[in-house]
Amino acid sequence: MRIHRTRLRARYAETDATGIIYYTSYFVYFEVGRVEMFRALGLPYDWRLPIVETHCRYRASARFDDLLEVETCVEEIRTRAFRMAQRVVRLPEAPEGGPGELLVEGYTVMMTQDESGPVPVPTAFRVAFEGPVDGGG
Amino acid sequence: MRIHRTRLRARYAETDATGIIYYTSYFVYFEVGRVEMFRALGLPYDWRLPIVETHCRYRASARFDDLLEVETCVEEIRTRAFRMAQRVVRLPEAPEGGPGELLVEGYTVMMTQDESGPVPVPTAFRVAFEGPVDGGG
Amino acid sequence: MRIHRTRLRARYAETDATGIIYYTSYFVYFEVGRVEMFRALGLPYDWRLPIVETHCRYRASARFDDLLEVETCVEEIRTRAFRMAQRVVRLPEAPEGGPGELLVEGYTVMMTQDESGPVPVPTAFRVAFEGPVDGGG
Amino acid sequence: MRIHRTRLRARYAETDATGIIYYTSYFVYFEVGRVEMFRALGLPYDWRLPIVETHCRYRASARFDDLLEVETCVEEIRTRAFRMAQRVVRLPEAPEGGPGELLVEGYTVMMTQDESGPVPVPTAFRVAFEGPVDGGG
Repeated sequence: MRIHRTRLRARYAETDATGIIYYTSYFVYFEVGRVEMFRALGLPYDWRLPIVETHCRYRASARFDDLLEVETCVEEIRTRAFRMAQRVVRLPEAPEGGPGELLVEGYTVMMTQDESGPVPVPTAFRVAFEGPVDGGG
Repeated sequence: MRIHRTRLRARYAETDATGIIYYTSYFVYFEVGRVEMFRALGLPYDWRLPIVETHCRYRASARFDDLLEVETCVEEIRTRAFRMAQRVVRLPEAPEGGPGELLVEGYTVMMTQDESGPVPVPTAFRVAFEGPVDGGG
Repeated sequence: MRIHRTRLRARYAETDATGIIYYTSYFVYFEVGRVEMFRALGLPYDWRLPIVETHCRYRASARFDDLLEVETCVEEIRTRAFRMAQRVVRLPEAPEGGPGELLVEGYTVMMTQDESGPVPVPTAFRVAFEGPVDGGG
Repeated sequence: MRIHRTRLRARYAETDATGIIYYTSYFVYFEVGRVEMFRALGLPYDWRLPIVETHCRYRASARFDDLLEVETCVEEIRTRAFRMAQRVVRLPEAPEGGPGELLVEGYTVMMTQDESGPVPVPTAFRVAFEGPVDGGG
């Protein structure tokens, strides 16, 4: 699958006393990335997709007001779950400012469920995950 | 009504890049104070008590790991709402370390509602608010 | 002064168990509004502007993924502080979807300081606050 | 090393629109667990211990006001980093209420650094991590 990308600015609320973006904020950024990928794919983002596992490796620090890009890519579809690779990159302020800098990389595993419990990944999800992303990279 | 008091430690997650506790964290502390006051009074704390107004004045800064005391006091019962005065004080680490330092003071107004909309403040709330607080100050 | 406006989407991280946007999230939105107003005005947004008072009145609830507009307006310049009126409005999803709905309104008072303590509001701030806002409303 | 345990109550601020504790809140609980373990060990908890990796697997959901216990255990000391296993368990409200329920389990890797960059794990840390924990389990 192609990589979906979305941009945001690091908020003051997301910093910590070390002067950098607090370590849990990246999991919020990962979620913004997933929500925007789902929007681009025309899929719902709701309680039927509980998170069962998440991971993050920290490479470099972001600071208040940095311009960030969140990359999301479905890298594995399992029987009743799927796994997304996620990265956050710091972009240069100027559009022609060169490549971004990798800050963190991780992954998120979401289960598929309905009212009665876990269910196989719906066909609409499989089709969407295997096709191109509108507006993605 | 007497003042209810509860203690907590400022978390690293609650700091910001200025090195102090982020300004919205005090509203979370206010809520911890309300929840513990309600527990002491034997009242439920749930969706039937939406917040309609809140205010905070900042006097001094807290830092990571400060020992804080949240004070909550119902200061006014209205027809379909009640207003609580709230303060956060920094305590000395040693029990005999002298008086605390006022950090912030504010208030919260909660409405009383049921499924159909606003309702008069229930009698159980009026009785509890006008009596002494178990374990309070 | 004219009103500065900026848009954002309510994040899942900002919801609470009542199913709506948590009450402190609006203070984060207020801050995003201030940061973007300062960017539009060419002013720095940093530790020299501590918040001394904030207030919010809640009119209606936002939900996950709502499209929100934050309005910020400097309404009073004091000797060593200034006060901004702030509102959050829910926008219709369609650009021609009619007027937005007021969700909350409040204000924020920021003091001006340097390393030695409070200072008069700098001239650059007074000039910027009294002129038009680039890209604002 | 023995397991260090600390208790807290799930806050309303930590819930999300699904009605459960939001997935990033557990990383804040993990941090509370680390801070309290460091306090018990007499070690500083500060910027010299940046987080380089974190992981969480979600087994069951917590809800507002649940009584939780955070378990922290240094499971590996590397050359310039150490890894802690972390778990969050829901306790019964009554002290004799039986065993707790495992909610999440994960780990955190912290690097040791000084002003000039990464340094070997200080001897004081090695000694503390290999001895018993005061007040721990």
